[in-house]
Amino acid sequence: MKSFISVDPSSHFPIENLPFGVGVPRGSDRARVYSRIGDWAVDLYQLQCEGRFAAVAGLPEGVFGVGRLNAFMALGRPVWRAVRDALTDLLQDDNPILRDDRALRERVLVPADRVAMMLPAEIGDYTDFYSSKEHATNVGTMFRGPENALMPNWLHLPVAYHGRASSVVVSGTDLHRPMGQTKADDADAPTYGPSKLMDFELETAFLVGSGTDLGETISVADAEEHIFGMVLMNDWSARDIQKWEYVPLGPFLGKNFGTSISPWVVTLDALAPFRCPGPDQDPEPLPYLRGDAPGAFDVVLEVTLAPEGRPPVLICESNFRTMYWTMAQQLAHHTVNGCPVNAGDLMGSGTLSGPTEGSYGSMLELSWRGTKPIALPGGGERKFIADGDTIAMTGYAQGDGYRVGFGEVTGTILPAKG
Amino acid sequence: MKSFISVDPSSHFPIENLPFGVGVPRGSDRARVYSRIGDWAVDLYQLQCEGRFAAVAGLPEGVFGVGRLNAFMALGRPVWRAVRDALTDLLQDDNPILRDDRALRERVLVPADRVAMMLPAEIGDYTDFYSSKEHATNVGTMFRGPENALMPNWLHLPVAYHGRASSVVVSGTDLHRPMGQTKADDADAPTYGPSKLMDFELETAFLVGSGTDLGETISVADAEEHIFGMVLMNDWSARDIQKWEYVPLGPFLGKNFGTSISPWVVTLDALAPFRCPGPDQDPEPLPYLRGDAPGAFDVVLEVTLAPEGRPPVLICESNFRTMYWTMAQQLAHHTVNGCPVNAGDLMGSGTLSGPTEGSYGSMLELSWRGTKPIALPGGGERKFIADGDTIAMTGYAQGDGYRVGFGEVTGTILPAKG
Repeated sequence: MKSFISVDPSSHFPIENLPFGVGVPRGSDRARVYSRIGDWAVDLYQLQCEGRFAAVAGLPEGVFGVGRLNAFMALGRPVWRAVRDALTDLLQDDNPILRDDRALRERVLVPADRVAMMLPAEIGDYTDFYSSKEHATNVGTMFRGPENALMPNWLHLPVAYHGRASSVVVSGTDLHRPMGQTKADDADAPTYGPSKLMDFELETAFLVGSGTDLGETISVADAEEHIFGMVLMNDWSARDIQKWEYVPLGPFLGKNFGTSISPWVVTLDALAPFRCPGPDQDPEPLPYLRGDAPGAFDVVLEVTLAPEGRPPVLICESNFRTMYWTMAQQLAHHTVNGCPVNAGDLMGSGTLSGPTEGSYGSMLELSWRGTKPIALPGGGERKFIADGDTIAMTGYAQGDGYRVGFGEVTGTILPAKG
Repeated sequence: MKSFISVDPSSHFPIENLPFGVGVPRGSDRARVYSRIGDWAVDLYQLQCEGRFAAVAGLPEGVFGVGRLNAFMALGRPVWRAVRDALTDLLQDDNPILRDDRALRERVLVPADRVAMMLPAEIGDYTDFYSSKEHATNVGTMFRGPENALMPNWLHLPVAYHGRASSVVVSGTDLHRPMGQTKADDADAPTYGPSKLMDFELETAFLVGSGTDLGETISVADAEEHIFGMVLMNDWSARDIQKWEYVPLGPFLGKNFGTSISPWVVTLDALAPFRCPGPDQDPEPLPYLRGDAPGAFDVVLEVTLAPEGRPPVLICESNFRTMYWTMAQQLAHHTVNGCPVNAGDLMGSGTLSGPTEGSYGSMLELSWRGTKPIALPGGGERKFIADGDTIAMTGYAQGDGYRVGFGEVTGTILPAKG
């Protein structure tokens, strides 16, 4: 497959990707839905106005002229697929329609750096899973010792908790170090102040497309029909706040000061060539969690840390394929009790740590609770995130001469406001 | 204060209340915002069309002609108060405008039983606190023994977790017993099936009115300016699912199959005469959680259980005033890290158990984990909720000759679908 638009082999956005996102073009205050190829944002609203999606059944007029993907997502996978197929066709090098019409190209192709990307969807509910066995084992080992690292339920169900939707922000949003209540192990009482143990968590997340009503369920076999696509996610964590507050009901203020996601939603159709088996599941899951298809995807994940005014340092290399529970299992589990899901719901993977030290997906694990500081080239070290540090995560699947990528999710930690 | 509309002293909706809600009048498919007096729903959209809120500054046209209160809530307390004051004035027995204009009365007063009430707001995020010391102590005693009943953090901060907004439903919505994964204490592996330990939790909840941006905080002193009003809430719980899944990240599928709230939102202005001191807080909270005003309200709470085809049995009498952490403290804590809140966010109290056995706010506590079954008059007993049982919760503040009440939140548990 080849497009008449030239795309560098290292680009995350070849014709094989064609993700969906929402942005505001420079000089405008009206958001639109875009796709992306190479360095170009593709204006889907304009394309629809020009009649280029006329063959897509069930696509309402104006669905791309809004600041969120929700309405499009709710239309269902056959529609998402038909739009992406139409785009693929339009961008192929043997199709003259766009290739040979300069005026049309100028109406629908916008330099990507002239579009300010926003959150792709209004997120109704945000759920975060805990589906990396390596991460759960690492954290469990630190807090409870290696014998009790994994809780008894972990191998039987995809453990998850509800996160805060209101503080999900798009890549590039800087966050102040949160204030909060913490207690030192040797202190009698808690104190109030800025978090001292700021961390990131390397995650992916999927966005629900077509949803369900109260009482309905989604089977593992059907689950991917309900998944609109994937993004990268940084589940920022204040470890000291989290540690003091989380018993017995789970993380709260240690997480809900901000969660960052990348703006381009990569479809499962784009990721299909990179499907692969995930870890073996032993014991075998209960029947409602069993599926036939391999549910993992070979997606390289990387994290860099850049101290203020200094270049980024690669601190983590991991892979999405190490996730134990598949997205299909996560969604089936989430709905097995009749809990309704809606277009725009965000579901995080949990921290995606790999099996080796360099693949751990959080400072907590990389520095092993601060006992193994990360040396920074050029001087200094990090146990946790310092003020001014920028964390950037990227991810891509490597094809033969092309990459299907996610772009990046970045954020800088600013000093506490308190 | 007296209205020309006759209201029974046992009614929850005298002129002193005037709550806000959303409903669809019979024969129509268009929702509107209503208030309520006695047996009448008061059509606020129609009143605004008739110019009766002309004196209220900052009230956009049509704000009551929609199926949710969010836009009105976001206007802020001075506007909510001005609308309620205008309503109070209009309904006073010495005001002839509505009293003496039969045609106007017929346009704006609708028999309450001809309006199908809906969720009062689109709920962006739902947070559930855990703020009854008695409940936390009871549950802690059952699971960890009396010495370790309260976790070390409990007396220092209002413990909370994020709930699922998509499954919050309005009173009267019946729910199927959820299917899910559970594990018996003596079993080697979990099994899949209908929950066997269905429970209710007696709660109140407040709805956020004017919200905050990312990074902003709300102080205890300002918090009530951001609280639009209160409802009753039944936080349905499947104890066996919850028990197996909740370690270490908190409740998930054991709760998110459904959470029921009452439709009429009672303002803090209506509850002001019933303000009273809550429990003493010892140790003294950190400064960011301290407030001057007494933050409790004397609201009687009752729960009945009605087996299918049989009359309701009173199984719990409690009071909102026993809640340890005030709503103002809850909201200040929730935002201390910069977590944004929005109009329509729902924040539950946690189960409101009182100090005596008859005041416990869940079957788990009332039957003490099933060891003390509740005998039902006419035969039978309950340890937990049986299929066909209807749980109804009501609550009111008793004034001198009048009651400011919440109406009720009801729901029937139907057999599992699985």
